[in-house]
Amino acid sequence: MGRTLTYPKGGSNTVNRYKHRGPVPTILPMIGQMGSFEYPSAAIDEPLECYLHGYVSSRIMNLARSSDKGLPICIAASKVDGIVLSLTPNSHSYNYRSAILHGYANLVTSDEEKVWAMKLITNSVVADRWDNSRVPPDSAEMSSTVILKVTIVDGSGKIRDGGVSDERKDKDNEEVTGRIWTGVVPVWETFGEPVPSAENKVADVPEHIRSYIADKNTKNRAYAEGAVGTELPAEEQH
Amino acid sequence: MGRTLTYPKGGSNTVNRYKHRGPVPTILPMIGQMGSFEYPSAAIDEPLECYLHGYVSSRIMNLARSSDKGLPICIAASKVDGIVLSLTPNSHSYNYRSAILHGYANLVTSDEEKVWAMKLITNSVVADRWDNSRVPPDSAEMSSTVILKVTIVDGSGKIRDGGVSDERKDKDNEEVTGRIWTGVVPVWETFGEPVPSAENKVADVPEHIRSYIADKNTKNRAYAEGAVGTELPAEEQH
Repeated sequence: MGRTLTYPKGGSNTVNRYKHRGPVPTILPMIGQMGSFEYPSAAIDEPLECYLHGYVSSRIMNLARSSDKGLPICIAASKVDGIVLSLTPNSHSYNYRSAILHGYANLVTSDEEKVWAMKLITNSVVADRWDNSRVPPDSAEMSSTVILKVTIVDGSGKIRDGGVSDERKDKDNEEVTGRIWTGVVPVWETFGEPVPSAENKVADVPEHIRSYIADKNTKNRAYAEGAVGTELPAEEQH
Repeated sequence: MGRTLTYPKGGSNTVNRYKHRGPVPTILPMIGQMGSFEYPSAAIDEPLECYLHGYVSSRIMNLARSSDKGLPICIAASKVDGIVLSLTPNSHSYNYRSAILHGYANLVTSDEEKVWAMKLITNSVVADRWDNSRVPPDSAEMSSTVILKVTIVDGSGKIRDGGVSDERKDKDNEEVTGRIWTGVVPVWETFGEPVPSAENKVADVPEHIRSYIADKNTKNRAYAEGAVGTELPAEEQH
């Protein structure tokens, strides 16, 4: 069910020439959700905290515990919405959305905030999943759950959408335009048919799962296809 | 076509309490491809370098140029293969694959290696795209293209696949199992119908694009559905 792989050693990467150097930064895959415990109705365009859940190594926990104002971290997420196929390799691109946040992470210690964050995160897996699972968490679950709350100090997002952008010298070259197809292939995340577990006792896939899948599939596809947009004159592109 | 968004300021994140602290790490979205210029036939299970392409800020370029053995960086990639819906919020999970590499980045300076890396990266967008675009790059394209070559010193990968994992106390509770559906929803990246650009002159979508899309759609779906696998007894899961 879970496997950990390591990078093959040999040749240039086993030499000791880097041994004396300082530590390189580290990135961990985690799931996260934006929210405000203090102002639960705060919208996505208002200041929010980022709640992170996942395997939190004891090293990170210790770092977060031992720093008086939190562990400085960067959070990044990105999604590809399309591949942009143009005349030259250099002008190939991806439609995508990406976001980067900088902030300071602390462990959530209050039970009230922890349950609130667990609900926020569970409902981001599938809408309404919290109320359709066995809640509330018992005391063993409460003590084993680690949630990091990141106070955001700055952040930025980048969106690339639209179509192909080529230079005039290539667009005016009929030998080139006559043989090279240009355009965008939309890319989106599809949610497939739910596969019941061997021990599942509920005959039909519940409505909260069915409607979530249908909604995501419709919206994901519409976004990727919509991101292709209308072609702009080259002067307005870059 | 391109938009940059910034995080809203206000409330807790605008106070000056973090101003005195050291810089937080930074993450950039880039595309990358593994390969070996020295041993082009090296397979994915042999030591390779990672070639990165994307917007390389002058800050990163200057850092890479000014460090004698390269800029220490961490590269991470992850992909979600399914959502794992179990009895309790705590046992919810994702099927996913993730990889993390540590290494030292240097700018590729040799033209021969740069063209080789450009071809490697272009063919990772769509197989065979290099030979189906306007090549070779001209001198202006060669000098404007920046590629980072990362010598890997270590790395690891994690794969979570399989099905639902719940605790005995919940699996034996008929009130719980009688109302909560458990199973996995496979998730995969779908490539849609190509949208030709307004200036495209090639009537039909070429075979190298059609077959790449068909191949990716078949393999992506098969992987996500295959990752659900056969249910294991709880004792073998974690």
